[in-house]
Amino acid sequence: MGVLGGGQLGRMLMQEAVNLDIKLFFLDPSADAPCSKIANGFTVGDFNDYRAVLDFGKDKDVITIEIEHVNVKALQELRESGIKVYPGPNIISMVQDKGIQKMFYRENGFPTSDFILVSTADEVIQELKSKALVQKLRKGGYDGRGVQVLKPGDDDRVFDAPSVLEDLVKIEKELSVIVSRNSHGEIASFPVVEMEFNPQANLVEFLFAPADIEPRIEKEARLLAEELISTLGMTGILAVEMFLDKSGRLLINEMAPRPHNSGHQTIEGNFTSQYAQHLRAILGLPPGNTELIMPSAMINLLGEPGYSGEVIYEGLNETLAIPGVYVHLYGKSETRPYRKMGHITILGKNRNELKQKSKLIKQTLKVKA
Amino acid sequence: MGVLGGGQLGRMLMQEAVNLDIKLFFLDPSADAPCSKIANGFTVGDFNDYRAVLDFGKDKDVITIEIEHVNVKALQELRESGIKVYPGPNIISMVQDKGIQKMFYRENGFPTSDFILVSTADEVIQELKSKALVQKLRKGGYDGRGVQVLKPGDDDRVFDAPSVLEDLVKIEKELSVIVSRNSHGEIASFPVVEMEFNPQANLVEFLFAPADIEPRIEKEARLLAEELISTLGMTGILAVEMFLDKSGRLLINEMAPRPHNSGHQTIEGNFTSQYAQHLRAILGLPPGNTELIMPSAMINLLGEPGYSGEVIYEGLNETLAIPGVYVHLYGKSETRPYRKMGHITILGKNRNELKQKSKLIKQTLKVKA
Repeated sequence: MGVLGGGQLGRMLMQEAVNLDIKLFFLDPSADAPCSKIANGFTVGDFNDYRAVLDFGKDKDVITIEIEHVNVKALQELRESGIKVYPGPNIISMVQDKGIQKMFYRENGFPTSDFILVSTADEVIQELKSKALVQKLRKGGYDGRGVQVLKPGDDDRVFDAPSVLEDLVKIEKELSVIVSRNSHGEIASFPVVEMEFNPQANLVEFLFAPADIEPRIEKEARLLAEELISTLGMTGILAVEMFLDKSGRLLINEMAPRPHNSGHQTIEGNFTSQYAQHLRAILGLPPGNTELIMPSAMINLLGEPGYSGEVIYEGLNETLAIPGVYVHLYGKSETRPYRKMGHITILGKNRNELKQKSKLIKQTLKVKA
Repeated sequence: MGVLGGGQLGRMLMQEAVNLDIKLFFLDPSADAPCSKIANGFTVGDFNDYRAVLDFGKDKDVITIEIEHVNVKALQELRESGIKVYPGPNIISMVQDKGIQKMFYRENGFPTSDFILVSTADEVIQELKSKALVQKLRKGGYDGRGVQVLKPGDDDRVFDAPSVLEDLVKIEKELSVIVSRNSHGEIASFPVVEMEFNPQANLVEFLFAPADIEPRIEKEARLLAEELISTLGMTGILAVEMFLDKSGRLLINEMAPRPHNSGHQTIEGNFTSQYAQHLRAILGLPPGNTELIMPSAMINLLGEPGYSGEVIYEGLNETLAIPGVYVHLYGKSETRPYRKMGHITILGKNRNELKQKSKLIKQTLKVKA
């Protein structure tokens, strides 16, 4: 099986693939990417490059991704030559452009915040006169980059590139649902999780499972994710990020057709992990049980601001002494401010215990250089 | 970190080591051993060979084992040169000889079945005149080989080699306790598990956690394991196999100073797996929580008698459709009768559910060629 991208998501996929003796080969431009030393095979090359993807893919049985910024044209050709490509190139292509993604929600009746598509900074400045809004670059944003909240008067901060301009949502909670669909069309969703973001880095800071929401919302959110993957007809795993607004409405924010940061805690917290589920889906195996084993929290381990260079994990021993704590380091040798260097899963009886342990870990464990 | 042996135990250790970004390098004589394709490094060489072990070990920080039949002389020299060797060479050496192992139990007051040491077949035949007994080769036995039960008249089956002759124990249950001790002397034991053996292959067929025993026996068995590792003063993980006899006495059968077949189910069934615990122990980290998450069973996936050659797993999809089932394939390309090709962990609410699922899996999943 070929995987485009050799980062932490690929690394955790690899750990899981070993259980079923599935051989994973990765393509990544960085020779010391997280997967480079532990994979069945690792090719240094640009997954955005037509030629590189074609060469990499041609001798594989199945190709999947762990990042969506890949060369779709090559994937289309590989698919036409009879190789299974999951998720399908058309879905990857749609997700690459946040404008097309928003249009898809609108055209298929999926709830999402109101928006317009713009091409230049001037258009954004024009819109900014009347209201605050969210500007998202249509292409190339990743891990919180390429997204910003703008207030009237923020004219000098606008991106001058094709963008989606979204109305600000009065957010009550940010939720995520991981859902899978296998090649026979069997669908299974994971329980809803709740995220708290770091406003500086625009990255998930804490995640709690299950989300503290009414059963009605839980049901609606999972149904929404299931309908979305069914409408897409995709094979694999899909992370659906949603807002619950102050009036109790669910709005789809974004989706990612691959294992996702909001599903890391499933490794220890659920009977089936998102990585196992992804493999089951693309291999045509029945979906595993998505239920929670017990409540869990997830903390991204981000590079401490002010430190760049060879990484040092301060307080690792103390962290490992806290019961119910699982440390995942991604094997990146260099840290920089807010770089995702690992994550921590915490299991606990209730939200309160999880919050206390999360805070303790935040104080204890620092990623420095 | 260097690991002597690159089999399935090393493979599962590797899967766990990735979480803490510990680099594992393996030494194994077989170029396609289970660890060969997924390790940070893999050296083809004989772990029994003095020169091979010395060359392999000299640039490592820590050396551990996943099999005890290794060259102890080389490990002693490596240790003298300042490299950490866990477990210590003296412990490995003792465990290699079942005669010395039994003497250790006797001399240190650990309960074990009565025994004598013999050198030749004639001595065995002499003893066999008066009673049935168990003959164990002092050296080289592995995975059930080199052990046999003999009845009076079985003279033509006796091994003609230095052996331990043990009195037959009237076995009520076969139990195992995994216990760890870190380099600071902190000790933690896992809950007792119960094993059912395949009489043909002398290998674990079913394992259940927790064992169905009185709280008094649970406590005694764990204490015995903790006292044993403390007396040994060893660093790492130790599996202690015991008999509970018909009169309610615990007798130590054997020990293995490494991750063990009777601890596989800890990957899914316990808050900390035996592999994580072994790494914590040898890295001087605090022990993880050994409690059960929920009851579990483990089945060894053995090569079906009558089949040898390139392996085929029959019924894998059906097996993966059973809830709470975790498949671990070891990546061995060739099967042969009773070869350990993988294992299955099952999580369930109670023993009854576990037994039913175990039986279903036994009927469903076959390792053929």
